[in-house]
This record gives sequence, structure tokens and C-alpha cells, in this order.
Amino acid sequence: MTVAATFADFATEWAPRIEGALEEIVPASDARPGELHAAMRHALFPGGKRLRPMLALIGARVTGGDVEAAVRPGAALELLHTYSLVHDDLPCMDDDDLRRGRPTCHKVFGDAVAVLAGDALLTLAFEVVAEGGAAAVRCLGRAAGSLGMVGGQAADLAAEGREDPGSFEELRWIHDHKTGALITASLEVGALAGGAGGNLSSLRQYGEKIGRAFQIADDVLDVTGTAEQIGKPPGSDEERRKLTYPAILGLEEARAQAQALADEAAALAGAICAGGERSTLDVDQGLLQDLASRIVTRSA
Amino acid sequence: MTVAATFADFATEWAPRIEGALEEIVPASDARPGELHAAMRHALFPGGKRLRPMLALIGARVTGGDVEAAVRPGAALELLHTYSLVHDDLPCMDDDDLRRGRPTCHKVFGDAVAVLAGDALLTLAFEVVAEGGAAAVRCLGRAAGSLGMVGGQAADLAAEGREDPGSFEELRWIHDHKTGALITASLEVGALAGGAGGNLSSLRQYGEKIGRAFQIADDVLDVTGTAEQIGKPPGSDEERRKLTYPAILGLEEARAQAQALADEAAALAGAICAGGERSTLDVDQGLLQDLASRIVTRSA
Repeated sequence: MTVAATFADFATEWAPRIEGALEEIVPASDARPGELHAAMRHALFPGGKRLRPMLALIGARVTGGDVEAAVRPGAALELLHTYSLVHDDLPCMDDDDLRRGRPTCHKVFGDAVAVLAGDALLTLAFEVVAEGGAAAVRCLGRAAGSLGMVGGQAADLAAEGREDPGSFEELRWIHDHKTGALITASLEVGALAGGAGGNLSSLRQYGEKIGRAFQIADDVLDVTGTAEQIGKPPGSDEERRKLTYPAILGLEEARAQAQALADEAAALAGAICAGGERSTLDVDQGLLQDLASRIVTRSA
Repeated sequence: MTVAATFADFATEWAPRIEGALEEIVPASDARPGELHAAMRHALFPGGKRLRPMLALIGARVTGGDVEAAVRPGAALELLHTYSLVHDDLPCMDDDDLRRGRPTCHKVFGDAVAVLAGDALLTLAFEVVAEGGAAAVRCLGRAAGSLGMVGGQAADLAAEGREDPGSFEELRWIHDHKTGALITASLEVGALAGGAGGNLSSLRQYGEKIGRAFQIADDVLDVTGTAEQIGKPPGSDEERRKLTYPAILGLEEARAQAQALADEAAALAGAICAGGERSTLDVDQGLLQDLASRIVTRSA
């Protein structure tokens, strides 16, 4: 029986496994030092959509791999994403008081503990992703470091303080690194942890396209969303004169580009799934197509 | 010919390889984003003794492994150690202006770039240590995270602010985690990267003992050393009412305990090296004994 595979169904099915893995991976709040573990848990729970772990599981599935084997490495991607939020929210960075509608880590535990909680989440991410093999570690390291996510964040901060509004090329470079690199790596880490050999270049291209679409959608939401939808006051990008897609392209053109990227990503589904001789090829392709579509139509 | 193996000779022989590896691993200051890479390089170069990479190379050698294969994973330990210094020096943490006699990273580049440079060094450490295999990654992750180095740092900060001076047990817990865990992991990561199989428990015990001796010697130096020797103003621990071995045990008893630990470590040399059928057993044992001795007699 071929069932329609929607991303929502897939996420509903696997969300408890990801939550369970995160719960198991992070030491309890009474493990010494308790305040540090409480801070890590404050940042992680309750979570959002756990998009990056879901991408890892999908990466394992559509390459014909073992989805179970990708659960803990997938959860590691959430640890890494959460560290980046904790550090981004610090007073010396974006100075945000709210995250997912709750006080940010440093507002509750102080700046020093927040720095250390972020460091510990990042370290734990690598310890756990190593269960998916050394190739998964290297993939994540490249995507998350100075030539990836952290590099994008540094360039973003540098651009924020300037008079010069910046070019479209710069905007795209920042977003591809700050957001896109980890989204692409999530799919790839999942594929590697699930046991996929062979060429993952179509999967990577898919990741780059949905990563870019995701960031454009995020920028658009910051303009059009409500505080309830985005978990923080809307309009904060404009207030800080951040370099964003709507600021450079206008809202309509930004939306159109996100949609075009999602369509291009969806068109890659066949090439990504063609590798195996699985009975679920149609379902897997449908899942990748639905995911690409959801990325741009999400409202939170 | 059996040559006397001193740690100094070993370090002199291998230092250029470690410096070369670090130079190769860290992107150039003109690689985008340049300021981030400049900040990473400011923190790394010129370096100190590169003790942790040397421990990794020794770990590979005394377990009969391939020392060459441990060079880059060994350099990764310096990346990780350096990240911890950059974050520890931040205003919200120890608030230090000088490190190795030079302005700290945040004094030159600002707090935000220093946070990101630390994050990028940590990430790069894991990317590179993965060249030594997934077991090396997991070993480093355990040692560096919330149940290891970062946990020790969090407990140290928590103790600093209190009226209660703290117990000897607490002091030892803090130091074993903050400093000892990474020293032990350096030996073990090197052994794993060099290809050692088998039981590394004697090597780990050796690491725990020299790690503890190292921290006691460090505390003693903060009392007795000159600014030139330690690269920052002496007496800073006392000024902050930090929990230290000399503060709890007195200077002489602290020195005696460091020496006793070094002797216990040296006595393990035979068990560590007995694993292989190598022609260099005597030399390797001598190297471990000399290293243990140097740890407590160092003056910088």
C-alpha cells in the first residue's frame, strides 16, 4: 500500500523519538554541576519543530538507510542548533530577551552560565553525532564552523553595524552560511548515519535550495508574522537594520524567490531517491516534495 | 642505540610539526569572514608549549601507535584548549585582559567576535579530531563537555562568587574536570588516533595523576611566579578568592601533593608501555617518567 507521505505525518510519527533521545542525551538537572545542566535543558525544552533532526531522519530514509540509526545523530543537530541560539541571544550578540516565547538562557541563568551552556551543547552535539561515524562528524564540523554557520553569524554581525546596506551577494552569502549550511548538513548527517554510501550531491543541492528558501521565509515572517507565531516581537530585523531578503528585494519578490527555490528543490526528489531499489520510492519522493513546499508556507 | 628520552627533546623534535599542522588547519586571515579568522589566529599564535598536542603524540608513541597519524588530531586538542581560554577570558567570565602576555581576544576584537572565535575553534577541533576516528571524537566530547571541562569551569565560577570557601573534595572535583579531563583525553585521543587498540586504563590513570599534579603546580605558580613566567599578573587567584590548592592546603603541602602524584604517575610507565613488543620500551618509559617530573617542576 502506498500512503501519501506528508512532512507533517512524518514529523508526528518521529517527534516522540527525537524528544526521547534528547531527554536521554542531556544529563539531568541534578547531575553536577546542576545549574549548567538546568541551563542546557532550559534552552532545549520545550522545543520547537525540531526541524533539523527531522531533516536528518528524512536524509536517512530517502537514501535507503536505517532511520533508527539516525535518531541520536539527528538529535545532535538540535543540540548544535540550540547552542547557536543561546550564543546568538547573548547581550554582546543579538541581545534578545525572548526565545520561543520564553526568557532566553542568559536572562534566567546569567551570561557566564549561558556561554558555558552553549559550549556544552555544542560539545555534546559532536560527542553524539560521532555515533553516526567519523564522516558525519566531519560533515557537521565543516557546516557549523568558521567556513559555515559561525562564519555566517560573524559576517551578519559585521554587516549589522555598518552604514552601507550591503549587496544581494553578501546577503545570500550570509544566509547560505548562517542558516543553509546546517540545514544541508542535517540531511547529509542523517544519510551518513543511516548508512548511505555513494554520491550525496543531489541531496546536498536539495538542502542548499530548501535552506535558502527557509531563510527567505524566515525573513518574510519577521515582517508579516505575529509575536505569537514567531515567539518574539515582529519587526526586530528592521529595527536593527539587519540585511534581509525583504529589505533588499521587497516582500513580494522575496516570496517569489522562496517559492522558486522550493520548486527547484522538489524537482530533485527523483535524483535523490533513485539510488536504491526500494518499494517506497514514490513515497520518499512525495515526502521530499512536500517538505520543500512546507518550508515556504510555514507560519511559525 | 638507546637514547635518553626527555620530554624537552621530544617536544623540540615535534613542535614544528604541531605548529605546521595548526597553520594548515586554521583558515588564513583573508578567508571570509576575515575578522573571525584573524581572531582565531590571534588566540592561537604565537602559542605556548602546546602541551596537549605533545601529550597526544606521546599517547600514540607509548602505546606503539603511529605518531604521524596523531599530529593533526593532536593539534585539534590545542584548538579546543584555546577556545576554552578565549571564552574563560570574556568579561562575563574571568574578565582577563592579558593572556600569554598579550591582549586577550575580546580586548582586540570585541566580545561578540571572541564568542564566535571560541565557538569556531571548538567546532574546528572536532572536525579535525575526527581524522583520528569516531572513538577519538567521543573521548574528546566526554572530556570537554558538561561532565568534563565545561562542567568544571561552571562549578569553578559558581564557587568563586560564594562566601563559603568550599571543601577539599569540591576543589579536587573542579580541577579534575576543568583541567584534568582534557589532559587525560589528550593522551587517549593520541593513542586512539595512532591506532592503539586494547585497554588504555593505565594511560588514563597516568593522565589523571599528571592532570591533577599540573593543576596544583599551576595554582602554586600563581602564588610564587612572576608576571613574566605566567603571562599575567601573579596573585590573581587570591584576589578573586578562588578556591585553590595553596589556599586550602598551604603552599608546602600543595607542592608535596603534586610531587607525590607525579611519582605515582611515573610508577605507571611500565604498565602503559608493556603492551607492545617494541625495541623502544625503555625509552618510552623514560619519556613518561620525565614528563611526570616536568609537570611539577615547570616554571611557566
